[in-house]
Amino acid sequence: MDALDPTPDDLLPAPLAQFSARDQIAMAEALDLAAQAIGLTEPNPRVGCVLTAPDGQVIGRGHTREAGGPHAEVVALREARAAGHDLRGATAHVTLEPCSHHGRTPPCADALVEAGLARVVIAALDPNPLVAGRGVRRLRAAGIEVTHGLMAEASRELNIGFFSRMLRGRPWVRMKVAGSLDGRSALPDGRSQWITGAAARADGHAWRRRAGAILTGAGTVLDDDPRLDTRLATDPWGRLPLRVVLDSTLRTPPTARLLDAPGRALLLCLPAALENEARVAALRREGVEIEAVAPGADGRPDLAAVLALLARRGINELHVEAGARLNGALLAAGRVDELLAYVAPVLLGEGRGLAAFGPPASLDQAWRLALHDVARVGEDVRLIGRPSGASAP
Amino acid sequence: MDALDPTPDDLLPAPLAQFSARDQIAMAEALDLAAQAIGLTEPNPRVGCVLTAPDGQVIGRGHTREAGGPHAEVVALREARAAGHDLRGATAHVTLEPCSHHGRTPPCADALVEAGLARVVIAALDPNPLVAGRGVRRLRAAGIEVTHGLMAEASRELNIGFFSRMLRGRPWVRMKVAGSLDGRSALPDGRSQWITGAAARADGHAWRRRAGAILTGAGTVLDDDPRLDTRLATDPWGRLPLRVVLDSTLRTPPTARLLDAPGRALLLCLPAALENEARVAALRREGVEIEAVAPGADGRPDLAAVLALLARRGINELHVEAGARLNGALLAAGRVDELLAYVAPVLLGEGRGLAAFGPPASLDQAWRLALHDVARVGEDVRLIGRPSGASAP
Repeated sequence: MDALDPTPDDLLPAPLAQFSARDQIAMAEALDLAAQAIGLTEPNPRVGCVLTAPDGQVIGRGHTREAGGPHAEVVALREARAAGHDLRGATAHVTLEPCSHHGRTPPCADALVEAGLARVVIAALDPNPLVAGRGVRRLRAAGIEVTHGLMAEASRELNIGFFSRMLRGRPWVRMKVAGSLDGRSALPDGRSQWITGAAARADGHAWRRRAGAILTGAGTVLDDDPRLDTRLATDPWGRLPLRVVLDSTLRTPPTARLLDAPGRALLLCLPAALENEARVAALRREGVEIEAVAPGADGRPDLAAVLALLARRGINELHVEAGARLNGALLAAGRVDELLAYVAPVLLGEGRGLAAFGPPASLDQAWRLALHDVARVGEDVRLIGRPSGASAP
Repeated sequence: MDALDPTPDDLLPAPLAQFSARDQIAMAEALDLAAQAIGLTEPNPRVGCVLTAPDGQVIGRGHTREAGGPHAEVVALREARAAGHDLRGATAHVTLEPCSHHGRTPPCADALVEAGLARVVIAALDPNPLVAGRGVRRLRAAGIEVTHGLMAEASRELNIGFFSRMLRGRPWVRMKVAGSLDGRSALPDGRSQWITGAAARADGHAWRRRAGAILTGAGTVLDDDPRLDTRLATDPWGRLPLRVVLDSTLRTPPTARLLDAPGRALLLCLPAALENEARVAALRREGVEIEAVAPGADGRPDLAAVLALLARRGINELHVEAGARLNGALLAAGRVDELLAYVAPVLLGEGRGLAAFGPPASLDQAWRLALHDVARVGEDVRLIGRPSGASAP
């Protein structure tokens, strides 16, 4: 999903040898700061900034705050000034290219210029190919030395959803499944608590917290009545992702637990479902939003339209926790970017599946992942995979 | 499966502090030697021996040879003598208690006494509680200092099948399964080549090579016609495990590839199947052995009797590679000691299962494993688990 146009010469990433060990240490800290912003900045990216004096001393640190609040560079500049540091000749290490446009906040590039910095080291350029490089050029025009490309991949990974939304107009879709070694998510009667252990469940909640929204289907709401919150994860910010239910006919009961949890909820239905005005009114009384999505070829809400709608609402990462049918539909539509699979070392023999879709015509055409990560989580195993051949946005 | 009788005081393992760093290094090498004997010594255990002079120099090394050949201690003594080393005052590090009985070879304990050794360090005692300690006492009676317990667990793991056969009268049953993340071993039409990758298949062959026998069912022979050989594994000894087909009615065709591969094959059928004399004769012309096993309650060959029969034939580790039905029957009968599962990061949607058995009454009663090992093998993930709460023999 990189821009197809060739990169202009002045925007080529610098070779790694051009960055000092000090640069690397400062950028690693900036990435740590950026990671602290998970769960806070949506729909903005997670960005960290570390300011160093000419002697290498760290004089300011910051990460992007909530939308409308200051960006990482401004937080770091404020911290340095509050401590009485001289900013002239300093270096800023920023995980994402400083913005050059007036949005809800003034451009960060201008703030760096005004502070009299000598040098700016950037991890990744802005994902939007129409904007990428503008911050770099603005800084250079003011006489600041600018290089980029240091730990760019880590910065992109941390903002994979933001990059996806900017470049593809849709969220990064991460599908979470949990099941037994023989691929069962529940006993035949639906009982599923608990196939995986406490550590895997807490880990799953930490992944939920990364997401701007959590998507499920009305069937799962009716069967399991999940809360889809992040109560098992450590969360310094206390912002719950938007809960989204794909609910063609508005079967979600107003008493559903996910409507009751703090934070917003959104039901996506077919246009016809809005005709049931009593139902709509009862749900809206619970504070839930309802939007209609036009049907696709199968008569259900069109999944591409669903993702486009969520992108327009600023959702960068979409965490899917659904039943086999919705999982299967998303997979069959090629709309899953990452699978987050927890495998419990247990055999159930029979039970419900993870994802229902027709068998591939051949094994070559199966939905195959390249393993991105394998880890033991408590008593279970976590696999993260991405469709083979697909590159990150 | 440890002996229930309390260990006599003179046979308690020594505390780790009693072993020197030299002892540890020598025993680790003895374990490496023992591991080289995998695929060679059946039905005997894999044993290694390292002889060190009083100054710590290694003067002899050996591992047990094929059945009827010399044991590890004797190989090491011969090597030391051939190199002209003085054995008086030397120390032997042996991974399993030296034998004290006349079998196909004279007792190793006597050979160590005659060589004039001063000290013997043993990893694990003989698994047979009726024999354990006899070697130790025989050595001590000759004035040799004997301690044991150094790396005993590693020695037992290496011989887990031998311990199982000695202590329980049945092989260690290791069930290999390979499937997709959604628990499918093949497409609905049976196609299964290849869900897992080349590295996982080669790894599976290395595990086959550990086993004294490989068990499958007649259905798998008819469906897949597997060779069940070890061609993908590095094998210095060239000894194929016994191929065993559980084949109630002798459906295995005389042309089956596993009958054609080098090494022996054994079909286990119900007594009634022997009445088909033409069939029996055709199979025996292929060099295959046929034995009848009395039926269990379900009318199929009794699985406990099958395992007892294989133990009597000296099978220590039994590698099961079968279809969902035989896998399910073994699991339901509680006859699986270890699961070796390869999980390919692929979703098939539909397909054949790994193990067919009725669903557990509750998740608490599911066949749950404690993870013993998790590793990435090429593009796939390998999990090794043992039933929760079960201890190694």
